[in-house]
Amino acid sequence: MRTASAGPEIERLITLLSKMPGLGPRSARRAALHLLGRRDALMRPLADALADAADKISACSECGNMDVSDPCAVCSAPNRAENAICVVETVGDLWALERAGAFKGRYHVLGGVLSALDGVRPEDLNIAKLIERAERSEVTEIVLALNATVDGQTTAHYLADRLEAAGVKVTSLARGVPVGGELDYLDDGTLAAAFKSRSSV
Amino acid sequence: MRTASAGPEIERLITLLSKMPGLGPRSARRAALHLLGRRDALMRPLADALADAADKISACSECGNMDVSDPCAVCSAPNRAENAICVVETVGDLWALERAGAFKGRYHVLGGVLSALDGVRPEDLNIAKLIERAERSEVTEIVLALNATVDGQTTAHYLADRLEAAGVKVTSLARGVPVGGELDYLDDGTLAAAFKSRSSV
Repeated sequence: MRTASAGPEIERLITLLSKMPGLGPRSARRAALHLLGRRDALMRPLADALADAADKISACSECGNMDVSDPCAVCSAPNRAENAICVVETVGDLWALERAGAFKGRYHVLGGVLSALDGVRPEDLNIAKLIERAERSEVTEIVLALNATVDGQTTAHYLADRLEAAGVKVTSLARGVPVGGELDYLDDGTLAAAFKSRSSV
Repeated sequence: MRTASAGPEIERLITLLSKMPGLGPRSARRAALHLLGRRDALMRPLADALADAADKISACSECGNMDVSDPCAVCSAPNRAENAICVVETVGDLWALERAGAFKGRYHVLGGVLSALDGVRPEDLNIAKLIERAERSEVTEIVLALNATVDGQTTAHYLADRLEAAGVKVTSLARGVPVGGELDYLDDGTLAAAFKSRSSV
């Protein structure tokens, strides 16, 4: 990571850039030079966009989605069904489902999955709020759209057990999701097909 | 690039991130979520570092290096030899040579190479200033450390012809640099070896 003759300002920029997913020390140096060569077109707008997003965007207190408003645009949209809640692991998964356009209800972002290996327990996830939402009279279906990984399916079974008491129908995505696959990596068609043929747990 | 439920602030951030080298639309979305999850540790410091670097860093009027001061730290270092100037294509190449620690003189950043295909002519590069520096009495050697590509070597020959009149010794990196290779991708040992066995043009 030594860049020697580069001053501390560039060193700091490269160090921070190299902490982004997808960029290592070498690509961070390339990115820094690329940015310095496009200050007004890219570097300053990016600095503004980062500061702006860091200040304005927060997690929705209702569903855990990221948005500038709380409740978020999805939770406050008048034209979305109130009766169905789709449970996802991350905001990235919510975006993937929205791109597929397969679901017109509300979402609930868990913020991860249960994992004995990583020490993630039920109380570490956004589960209490999900139970509370599921118990509301207007909610009739909870769609568990968790990754088809071991931890994702373990979490789905755990949630199905917990949600049974709330008297809602609990469904999961169809088996169209490949085993071991992650939602954010699937094409929109597969996601839409999996949504259409969802089955009772 | 649609992220659907994400607001315009996130969309703008993702669009700008995806313009960085090494990041595409999908990795830009992942990076945006990664940043939003580490606001105080990474996102705000990165915004500050970008704005700070964009404001403070400029090209050195002497050699073309990027630094907060003009002349840059390399040009104003009292312990570096005044008699040798190493000519490189980009600031990234200068950093690569500094990491190898093989050269203790001054640098000159051309800002590219001559290219008939891309329409890069001598007047598009930082050549006039190089000739001016080469004609100074204290300068005795110009090391051409250009990439071992066709355009790099064409540029080296052009510069050797132009610099002949200045009465300086013009050398180039040893044949240790692999044909078609680029400086920024070589290991430090190869760069150091190539520097040691540099030969007269």
